[in-house]
Amino acid sequence: MVNKTLHYYILSDSIGETALKVARSALSQFPTAHTVLHKYNFISNKAQLKDIIDHAQKHDGLLFMTIVDPELAQFVEKACIETGLICYNLIQPFILEIQRRLDLKPSTIAGAQHELSEQYFARVKAIEFCIHYDDGKDLSGLDEAEIVLLGISRTGKTPLSMYLGTLGYKVLNLPIMPEKEVSPELYSIDPNKIIGLTNEVDVINRHREKRMAEYGLGPGSHYASKERIEEELTYARKLYQDLGCRTLNVADRSIEESASIILDMLGLTPR
Amino acid sequence: MVNKTLHYYILSDSIGETALKVARSALSQFPTAHTVLHKYNFISNKAQLKDIIDHAQKHDGLLFMTIVDPELAQFVEKACIETGLICYNLIQPFILEIQRRLDLKPSTIAGAQHELSEQYFARVKAIEFCIHYDDGKDLSGLDEAEIVLLGISRTGKTPLSMYLGTLGYKVLNLPIMPEKEVSPELYSIDPNKIIGLTNEVDVINRHREKRMAEYGLGPGSHYASKERIEEELTYARKLYQDLGCRTLNVADRSIEESASIILDMLGLTPR
Repeated sequence: MVNKTLHYYILSDSIGETALKVARSALSQFPTAHTVLHKYNFISNKAQLKDIIDHAQKHDGLLFMTIVDPELAQFVEKACIETGLICYNLIQPFILEIQRRLDLKPSTIAGAQHELSEQYFARVKAIEFCIHYDDGKDLSGLDEAEIVLLGISRTGKTPLSMYLGTLGYKVLNLPIMPEKEVSPELYSIDPNKIIGLTNEVDVINRHREKRMAEYGLGPGSHYASKERIEEELTYARKLYQDLGCRTLNVADRSIEESASIILDMLGLTPR
Repeated sequence: MVNKTLHYYILSDSIGETALKVARSALSQFPTAHTVLHKYNFISNKAQLKDIIDHAQKHDGLLFMTIVDPELAQFVEKACIETGLICYNLIQPFILEIQRRLDLKPSTIAGAQHELSEQYFARVKAIEFCIHYDDGKDLSGLDEAEIVLLGISRTGKTPLSMYLGTLGYKVLNLPIMPEKEVSPELYSIDPNKIIGLTNEVDVINRHREKRMAEYGLGPGSHYASKERIEEELTYARKLYQDLGCRTLNVADRSIEESASIILDMLGLTPR
């Protein structure tokens, strides 16, 4: 059977991030599906909406909308009733319910315009912190860091740090290996903010061979060997125990998933 | 009048990112609202759900749910009918509609378990690329970069690069200033992948004074002066014109908003 193609449309008066997240979340349930994304951001008038509706009609598109302007949102809903298109309004129903409960008026200002200057400064600072204190380059930030990540090579310390940085957290990450003693300062900070990363031997082996290949080297190096990885992991587990820190096995976890678990472990909420 | 408090609950069998995004998107319409977040991730059984429902009942909570397991999702919906709680099911209705259209069965595997190994490698590589080629440290990546960001100091090149990196894009960013000639290589790459960042004098002035204060220096430096910033911006605009690249004014834009506009300009979709 030939797979049908699903055309899905993101309609937003902001950057369309929320609607895209919902649509992709639903679509991730159909990994073999043929899909085509049509994304329309910063929509500000009915003429644009009319064009989009015409386009969507040609493809019997499925619409995901986060338009906060009530007049524009209603224009789409009316057009969908007339044309038979399905549009999920992913924001208005929730706004109305919150409005009713809190007895407050919504601002009707599109989302992307909301970031406060102070929040922006804090995020920029956090990202700069994560870069500066990446890969054990400088340990003077141990006290200021909100999260300290430890792990042997290829346990994903750097991507995890940067992702947490974009969420507004100051992360210092430090590579560890049996041959190199860790700084004694590590024992003087709060172990509750330290997370020791672990992973499965096979996964690290795959990551390290991939890295070797990128350097133009074949497999079979000591660095990528399972014996060496097992030795490093044994050392890491012992160190985590000595430090009294918690550990996280990142095998088969996405970056977002690991980040979310770490925030939960530390009692932090996404900023 | 005393503000009421809204307790909102995130229920997910994954990391709850999608539901949180929707809830926060709606709540951003009420910047003065008092809210309390209750987040429950990796839900896997009815006993957990029962506890959450009991908790939510005490606070008349508003529930946002992305549970893909149909049995667990129905359990919540039934409990809400019995207790009068409101729960927004942010995934099942869309899954059902997509299923009907594509004639495919959903996987019913929670979202965070979906990231494919190849995607993971690509993102890790992109983030490592962005760190390596941050702040003009190395120009040898100009060809490999998918996006090249230029800008004078404090136009937000670094946070923007890292955010795009977490989305899977390889970004090289390069600071510019009138006293330092740019590398001639910049003229030999595709100008379509270069974005010249600009900003308002007042905004940069605020950012630079903030930075000076962080260094323990008072305001009034040449670096933070409006005359100097105007001079640098004039130089930047001239350079962008010479390169034939597009420009983006990031004033009053969030990091996500600027990133989204850049991807649109380059005809790239979020990965």
